[in-house]
Amino acid sequence: MAGDLIFLAAVSLLSAFQQSYFAWLVGKSRMKHKIMPPAVTGAPEFERTFRAQQNCVEFYPIFLTVLWTAGWFFNQGLASFLGVLYVFARYKYFHGYVQSVKGRLIGFYLNLLILICLTTLGAAGIVNSFLDEYLDFSITKRLRKLF
Amino acid sequence: MAGDLIFLAAVSLLSAFQQSYFAWLVGKSRMKHKIMPPAVTGAPEFERTFRAQQNCVEFYPIFLTVLWTAGWFFNQGLASFLGVLYVFARYKYFHGYVQSVKGRLIGFYLNLLILICLTTLGAAGIVNSFLDEYLDFSITKRLRKLF
Amino acid sequence: MAGDLIFLAAVSLLSAFQQSYFAWLVGKSRMKHKIMPPAVTGAPEFERTFRAQQNCVEFYPIFLTVLWTAGWFFNQGLASFLGVLYVFARYKYFHGYVQSVKGRLIGFYLNLLILICLTTLGAAGIVNSFLDEYLDFSITKRLRKLF
Repeated sequence: MAGDLIFLAAVSLLSAFQQSYFAWLVGKSRMKHKIMPPAVTGAPEFERTFRAQQNCVEFYPIFLTVLWTAGWFFNQGLASFLGVLYVFARYKYFHGYVQSVKGRLIGFYLNLLILICLTTLGAAGIVNSFLDEYLDFSITKRLRKLF
Repeated sequence: MAGDLIFLAAVSLLSAFQQSYFAWLVGKSRMKHKIMPPAVTGAPEFERTFRAQQNCVEFYPIFLTVLWTAGWFFNQGLASFLGVLYVFARYKYFHGYVQSVKGRLIGFYLNLLILICLTTLGAAGIVNSFLDEYLDFSITKRLRKLF
Repeated sequence: MAGDLIFLAAVSLLSAFQQSYFAWLVGKSRMKHKIMPPAVTGAPEFERTFRAQQNCVEFYPIFLTVLWTAGWFFNQGLASFLGVLYVFARYKYFHGYVQSVKGRLIGFYLNLLILICLTTLGAAGIVNSFLDEYLDFSITKRLRKLF
């Protein structure tokens, strides 16, 4: 049982660590630009750092949901690989955004692409499981018979 | 096993898609009102759109937690139905808020009601499982014997 | 099966309830200081309350991820105990922050410490499960043989 989830759990833990790291970088940027909480406006570099982290926060539960759905219902290995790629894309996004507003775009589009892939895999897996469980019709079994 | 979770997973995927859609609508509103990131203030309509999405973000992990607890420990079908209702209520909330500050209220109260229902079901399910597992006392079995 | 998760689920439900409670306190603070949505600036006490809640929101999915990883792969009892402690630390943090900017610090450091503990337990559990599952090398079994 635990083995079915181990890579998904490892990627989730890695991404949770990254999210904490981004929060810490916002704190560091606060000190650098002398912006005391609860303020969230001031130097443009701080504002970009803060907004980069906020965007990561907004998408984090979405990422976890599609990662686990794709991993559970489609394929753990593929979903975990895409998950690691997402963590890398978030790294590109965050540090690009801190540099400049335009710098966020490559990471942003890569993130979007990965989320679309994971959502598609998850939806395909759910539909296949549903057909198999409730209508006794398994697409994967049919495909295997054909080849 | 997978069948025990399939509807919860489907509702989670649907809600993740909706959250991404709301984020995309904020981006669209940015372009309409020419508000470049990282700014989050400007035209009142943009500010309402942004705050609507932020509220959805704040409640999303809460929703997922109570959805899965209610679905796992109480009843998957009922929890999933309430989950779909929640997605609909979020739709009402978001588009109502974009229109006017008062427009958010109907969706907001519906959301609140659904969260209270899911939390209650989840708590009831956990208490019942706890009694059954650790004290060998099952309320559901007793009720079945009575009728 | 359900018994393996019951304490983790109970702590998750408790923390979800606390998150909703914090959101409600922000609403109450809005009324007290007459700050109508979508505005999020105004009286310093309101701004501290709002930022306290936002910080809780940012860390909530991180908390859930490390709680479940530590509980699933290491030890449910220990992870759940740390989870309850986290809820208490968030209580200290929130109410301390509402009082003053410095008041948040004790709760904040306690939160950080608990997150580090849970992450470490989760990582240890994943590594042990990985060795056991894929390399047939179980640290826990070796330790038991030694003593």
